[in-house]
Amino acid sequence: MPFKDILQTMVDSVEGAVGAVVMGYDGIAIDEFVKKENPFDLQLLTAEYAAVLKEVKGTVEVLKSGLLQEVSINTELSTAIARVINEDFFVLLVITGGGNFGKGRFYLRREAPKLAEALQ
Amino acid sequence: MPFKDILQTMVDSVEGAVGAVVMGYDGIAIDEFVKKENPFDLQLLTAEYAAVLKEVKGTVEVLKSGLLQEVSINTELSTAIARVINEDFFVLLVITGGGNFGKGRFYLRREAPKLAEALQ
Repeated sequence: MPFKDILQTMVDSVEGAVGAVVMGYDGIAIDEFVKKENPFDLQLLTAEYAAVLKEVKGTVEVLKSGLLQEVSINTELSTAIARVINEDFFVLLVITGGGNFGKGRFYLRREAPKLAEALQ
Repeated sequence: MPFKDILQTMVDSVEGAVGAVVMGYDGIAIDEFVKKENPFDLQLLTAEYAAVLKEVKGTVEVLKSGLLQEVSINTELSTAIARVINEDFFVLLVITGGGNFGKGRFYLRREAPKLAEALQ
């Protein structure tokens, strides 16, 4: 399964990135890559972001804004960018403060189709 | 109240922007500016985004990621960027597909402190 390679390439290529996970709206992680030197509670993160993404997906449907593509959440300390892969899964990239948000978005946009293919 | 001027400047300056609203996490809009030629159901939008932002705020607190600053939601047809003003309010900018996301974020970052001041 090529997930880990794709996720590692993304994390290694984006300044400030500390981890990436392919997960479902149900909170189940398919695979992930986390930098050893920046450990964080991935299970808690995936559970929390699954709930947020589900809420956003529902809102987008009510507002008839078309298919959801990406959600980003910026806080003082970090940025999380979720890129939709398909109807059931998305890839979440976590970047710590000051990292390269634009590059993160770019890599996610570029890699999402490869992840979609790997999920078939 | 200077809100409308600030919101109008933002909407007029960002290519693709169709409206902006200052609102609370409770869904109540303080003020808004919407382009006449691109009407949309602002009441529905504010209700839906208040729910999303509340969910995100809760998640950020659980994950201890520091204060929430910005949330963006990109779909096929539009992008909504919410910039936190203070503990109770945020400003939401709606940009239709292909508009200038980066400029939208820039203006929101720049104008949020002025809106915070006007809210005191």
